[in-house]
Amino acid sequence: MTANMIFRDEQLRWFGSEVLMRAGVPEAGARLVAETLVDADLHGVDSHGVVRLDIYLKRLEGGMIEAAAAPAVLRDHAPVLLIDGKNNFGAVAGQFALEQVLDSARRHGCGIAGIRHSNHFGTCAYYARKAIDEGFILIALSNASQTMPPAGGLRPFLGTNPLCVGIPAGERLPFVLDMATSVVARGKIIVAAEKKEPIPAGWAIDKEGRPTTDAQAALAGSVLPLGGPKGYAIAMFIDILCGVLTGAGYGDKVHNMYEDWVNPQNVGHLFIALDVERFMPQAEFRSRMDQYIDALKAEPKAPGVAEIFVPGELEHRTFERRKRDGIVLPAGVATALRGWGKKYGVELDGHASA
Amino acid sequence: MTANMIFRDEQLRWFGSEVLMRAGVPEAGARLVAETLVDADLHGVDSHGVVRLDIYLKRLEGGMIEAAAAPAVLRDHAPVLLIDGKNNFGAVAGQFALEQVLDSARRHGCGIAGIRHSNHFGTCAYYARKAIDEGFILIALSNASQTMPPAGGLRPFLGTNPLCVGIPAGERLPFVLDMATSVVARGKIIVAAEKKEPIPAGWAIDKEGRPTTDAQAALAGSVLPLGGPKGYAIAMFIDILCGVLTGAGYGDKVHNMYEDWVNPQNVGHLFIALDVERFMPQAEFRSRMDQYIDALKAEPKAPGVAEIFVPGELEHRTFERRKRDGIVLPAGVATALRGWGKKYGVELDGHASA
Repeated sequence: MTANMIFRDEQLRWFGSEVLMRAGVPEAGARLVAETLVDADLHGVDSHGVVRLDIYLKRLEGGMIEAAAAPAVLRDHAPVLLIDGKNNFGAVAGQFALEQVLDSARRHGCGIAGIRHSNHFGTCAYYARKAIDEGFILIALSNASQTMPPAGGLRPFLGTNPLCVGIPAGERLPFVLDMATSVVARGKIIVAAEKKEPIPAGWAIDKEGRPTTDAQAALAGSVLPLGGPKGYAIAMFIDILCGVLTGAGYGDKVHNMYEDWVNPQNVGHLFIALDVERFMPQAEFRSRMDQYIDALKAEPKAPGVAEIFVPGELEHRTFERRKRDGIVLPAGVATALRGWGKKYGVELDGHASA
Repeated sequence: MTANMIFRDEQLRWFGSEVLMRAGVPEAGARLVAETLVDADLHGVDSHGVVRLDIYLKRLEGGMIEAAAAPAVLRDHAPVLLIDGKNNFGAVAGQFALEQVLDSARRHGCGIAGIRHSNHFGTCAYYARKAIDEGFILIALSNASQTMPPAGGLRPFLGTNPLCVGIPAGERLPFVLDMATSVVARGKIIVAAEKKEPIPAGWAIDKEGRPTTDAQAALAGSVLPLGGPKGYAIAMFIDILCGVLTGAGYGDKVHNMYEDWVNPQNVGHLFIALDVERFMPQAEFRSRMDQYIDALKAEPKAPGVAEIFVPGELEHRTFERRKRDGIVLPAGVATALRGWGKKYGVELDGHASA
């Protein structure tokens, strides 16, 4: 088989939205979902890229996602809003909520939205970059289904609930932090298990709750929060703000996208948008950001370190490279996409090619 | 010497405020500063307790703190406010800002305050517990002078900038997270150095930027952020929101309380207060919190673990114990306090005694 494994981002975006539309998703939602996935691929976050189209389509076909439902503001007391994602794709709920908090930030200086009844919404960084494009600071939080134990616990109770902060700069690249609250991505443990290599101490516990360096035992157990009790506490406050406070699921009430075919996920998110103009003029703030970043990057480096990076900078370099050179998909991912293309009469290589 | 080393909290609060007043601090500020310090001791955060009275008094006497200046709102666009701490004690600025954001949260559902020209303000948890007492959620951030390198850096650039989140519950104890963004408190490295014991890998780098397990070399170098690049990124966004955004110092512009006797500290803080009533009735939220905490605490425990704790729970137990049994001060701390007492004619053991 000589199938092409390198794809232009336009091609993947076109393919994703075509397949989603033919599977019954209204055009705007289909385009948005495809855009968020390809945006993740472009930035090097392959785990949140078009690889997810497979599970998204399975859940859509299984009736687990209501792609025709319009998210709605349940309580409109701007600057604080409660939004019902109506079990549409997380990206549709996320984009809707983003527009609401930015509108509120324009009018009130800030906007805080809790979102319930949502689904996996891609990377938080997608929304942060959109806010930055309009000159706003965004804090974006989401809960997720259970993969990490509490400190002292034996089995998963918390998700690797992401913490994201996006802050505009001037001439420099913006600050974009988007991190899982686990010590390491579960994918790294999968890779070690495939290579039959041990994992470092502190990454995981086995299913009896004992620390392990055995990758297989770790996969049967749980990945640990970053920084021990501190990461546990961070993941927990995110679960509370996104789940307990918004009326979404929390703990075992956030249903696993891959395992639960009865219940909607009921993921919750929380967005906080902030207008820097309430503190100082945009130009002054951006200039201060540039000074800060310049000072940081000019710091002396540890042995073997060529450059100090600001969060988001490496992802931006990947973005520029992949925009230019295309996105390489693993064979398995491309094969799965071709399968969906065949089902819905869309050619993966049919739009453009690198 | 048979000097008593166990003190009632009332006694320390009385002593602290008396000494501060005689050193020229207006009564309200003196009482507040003493209260925040003793509150830290009561909760077991000895590093932020009355041990700090010594440096506070030195800076006050050195003209580095303006105890008569009233903090002011510079930009009053509630729900977003910019506050000038006027170089008064951090506790005075912090308490003022807390009242502003809670007032805004009552009226608008949320309140966000940036505070510039402040000083060390004690524990963030002090403010979080005050907000919780009135039924609000509080996110409290502060920057601090340089003690941690950026990822890949050689020397301190960031402070151990604390992240604090306080959330009320119902019958259960509230959630109170207040953590430094370092992997470990610098105090633990000092203790290891005194005992001539090694420290675990990953805690610190030496002054050439190399990983070290030598406690002495670590003290000459830098303590590391928790979780590697993730902790670095968290400390950095806190520095940006508290310093770059508010007009306070950031990076090397936050001056070291112990080393800089020319410049005010110019610490910055950021408070976000949130009214749960904008999402659901208080009673419903509190009930959901209790369910969440009960589910978490009922989780099966890892081997050797007797109980799973919610952030703030251990501190609350220490609070109850020290309220009952008193606060034990190390000899050096008690001696320093007696020295100040002698200077200002206040008897450390003069008010009450355990």
